[in-house]
Amino acid sequence: MPELTTPDTNTPEAVAEPIFQRLVLIGLGLIGSSVARAARETGAAAEIVACDASEAVCTRVAELGIADRVEADPALAVASADCVMLCVPVGALADVAAVIAPHLAPGAILTDVGSTKISVVRDVGPVVPAGVHFVPAHPLAGTEFSGPDAGFATLFQGRYCLVVPPAGTDAAAVARVVALWERLGAMVEEMEPAHHDRVLAVVSHLPHLLAFTICGTADDLADETRQEVLRFAASGFRDFTRIAASDPVMWRDIFLNNREALLEMLARFTEDAQAMARAIRWGDAGYIEDRVLRGRKIRRSLIEIKQA
Amino acid sequence: MPELTTPDTNTPEAVAEPIFQRLVLIGLGLIGSSVARAARETGAAAEIVACDASEAVCTRVAELGIADRVEADPALAVASADCVMLCVPVGALADVAAVIAPHLAPGAILTDVGSTKISVVRDVGPVVPAGVHFVPAHPLAGTEFSGPDAGFATLFQGRYCLVVPPAGTDAAAVARVVALWERLGAMVEEMEPAHHDRVLAVVSHLPHLLAFTICGTADDLADETRQEVLRFAASGFRDFTRIAASDPVMWRDIFLNNREALLEMLARFTEDAQAMARAIRWGDAGYIEDRVLRGRKIRRSLIEIKQA
Repeated sequence: MPELTTPDTNTPEAVAEPIFQRLVLIGLGLIGSSVARAARETGAAAEIVACDASEAVCTRVAELGIADRVEADPALAVASADCVMLCVPVGALADVAAVIAPHLAPGAILTDVGSTKISVVRDVGPVVPAGVHFVPAHPLAGTEFSGPDAGFATLFQGRYCLVVPPAGTDAAAVARVVALWERLGAMVEEMEPAHHDRVLAVVSHLPHLLAFTICGTADDLADETRQEVLRFAASGFRDFTRIAASDPVMWRDIFLNNREALLEMLARFTEDAQAMARAIRWGDAGYIEDRVLRGRKIRRSLIEIKQA
Repeated sequence: MPELTTPDTNTPEAVAEPIFQRLVLIGLGLIGSSVARAARETGAAAEIVACDASEAVCTRVAELGIADRVEADPALAVASADCVMLCVPVGALADVAAVIAPHLAPGAILTDVGSTKISVVRDVGPVVPAGVHFVPAHPLAGTEFSGPDAGFATLFQGRYCLVVPPAGTDAAAVARVVALWERLGAMVEEMEPAHHDRVLAVVSHLPHLLAFTICGTADDLADETRQEVLRFAASGFRDFTRIAASDPVMWRDIFLNNREALLEMLARFTEDAQAMARAIRWGDAGYIEDRVLRGRKIRRSLIEIKQA
């Protein structure tokens, strides 16, 4: 197991030592294919095996040459692996986990990259065989593009990866998952599943819900007006459509699997939006200015901590 | 007056011919200072006069050397100008117009760059003296930065500028304002004030309202959680804070001066967000997927017409 606190982990020798002998990636979309590329570039795994439910994706991954081996059958793919990473939409995790569980090697680490964590612990936890270590994780990185061509090796550099082990998880297994993500360039933090889901609801899931919704609101306008919405999209709307271009199945699954936290954050947001509407209707200039200033303040804090 | 349809308007000689002899800019923020820079670079005006209510801004504009003359007194600044462009927040337009109106030269063109147009026609129209041509306009360009240092000459290139003349405006005056914005690099379209305000409500004002509001919602969370909202800001939230970093006074004035259209668009949006919340609560996967797909569709259309 690599030494996590060794100051010279970035020297060529340290980088060359693989963290896993066989890393199996199930799901080769933006995240899975980026992990494949980053793991090869950093020598994080001696062998990288790719597995995807889509024949077209398997073919494309083979063409791209980003894995050492492509295996369409997940039961065969996970054989003898010391790490299996599930990179499928969170709604598909339960089925995939059930299929591979009987074939996982004793001592193997099972991890994932899902954006909701209570649901992952609930859906995957029960099928994990004794002797296999289940260490859920979530890299906070992505773009609005999807599929194996969209991935790139530097996607995780300087971004957070949250590791969310259920209580009682083997500490050595957690440390190896932490080491993997640090090798891929991420800043790793541990977090409880419920806290993870609330934080993500407000920083990511709600903003995406708002972006999808405003595009729908615009799409519902009469044909003539919709055309002009497109032609005259000022910067505000353009940014929202970029967010809204994300993968439909992935986001459908996130919304359905972080229901409670997301609905709570949407309710808080709606109260605040209604308060703003009331201030606009009644001409409460001070209130409006105060809300705009808060946006500025948050932006400045983000810039200060280098996350903007 | 320049020939608008001449194909060789981009030849050096054509560019060198000024559209106005003396262009007076009142308000040297992001937009005003960008107009100054672009007008000089394109030779759109023989002389550029800058005027700002802030002494600090006047000093800085003089230091930057982006105007031929800086004049703190608006009444003096507008003397003998053939074009006066008001680049102040829309809430300040009525007062500024009242101060300069008696000093405008006969035949001069008075224009503005405000983001709301019914209010501009209502506030400025009545004080415009006979013989002065009032031609409201609105360049759809900007960044989240403010002040004379934030401006740049290429801000308007390839962006739309909407010219919104009240009924009965002198056609030659409208053509000169169109020519000015085309010279500065914009694509110009004419539009009715009421239609302008509805289109802008959905493409710009509502997205900004949502971005300001979500920052406030996050700011209201407990200290400990807010810290994590900042640290773990995924791409969705980061983009929202960028939008939310805009100028507070400018946006306060926009919201108050496009009240009816903005409240209508917010009401439509809120209905749609509530429908999405209901779909999430009841697990209506098809509905959620459909809304996400609409976002994608709009994004694609924007890319096709090169506005993304």
